[in-house]
Amino acid sequence: MNPKRCAACRYLRRRCPKDCVFSPYFPPNNPEKFACVHRIYGAGNVSKMLQQLPVQTRAEAVESLCFEATCRIEDPVYGCVGMISLLQTQIQKTKNLLARTQAEITVAQIKHSQNQHSEFM
Amino acid sequence: MNPKRCAACRYLRRRCPKDCVFSPYFPPNNPEKFACVHRIYGAGNVSKMLQQLPVQTRAEAVESLCFEATCRIEDPVYGCVGMISLLQTQIQKTKNLLARTQAEITVAQIKHSQNQHSEFM
Repeated sequence: MNPKRCAACRYLRRRCPKDCVFSPYFPPNNPEKFACVHRIYGAGNVSKMLQQLPVQTRAEAVESLCFEATCRIEDPVYGCVGMISLLQTQIQKTKNLLARTQAEITVAQIKHSQNQHSEFM
Repeated sequence: MNPKRCAACRYLRRRCPKDCVFSPYFPPNNPEKFACVHRIYGAGNVSKMLQQLPVQTRAEAVESLCFEATCRIEDPVYGCVGMISLLQTQIQKTKNLLARTQAEITVAQIKHSQNQHSEFM
């Protein structure tokens, strides 16, 4: 047993090669992280996706894959698309509130100018 | 060749069984839809995820998986997590604008009441 094997190689019960594609992103002290992406995408697909990316973008790709996988495990029907819908609803509500507030300002300004006009009559 | 084979069974070059788990959601006239989810998740994982869900939720699950897969193909580093970040930024901007507008209203109301107060002095 090599205590320095990454979480992926431990999970897959294999030797962790020096140029392991998983090793920089799946430290042995966080086995859940690999288990999540493996469960949703499969180790082979994750490895393939990482190998197709420039090394400097792989850490961010792993984080976003982990995030999506966690969302899919928590919500097997909608995954993080459910979160996108919620955010879109929230934006729409905030935009509606903004439009109403801006309309209130306009009405207040009209009333104010009407009052000023009547004062001078 | 069975012309009624679903897009998944065509892609996997296999017979489409009567109880095919893919068939209701991957019609033969849309081969791209299956190709996308297969490329990101693999047919086996998609089949496993669908089989773990009640039948009435599977159509929505397929749509969200296709959406996530398409996002991942278009943006291999961030996938649809990139979209979530954009939406969160948009919400923050709209909230800031709303807060500014509400502050403007408060200032205008204070000025208005000060004016009215001075008129009666």
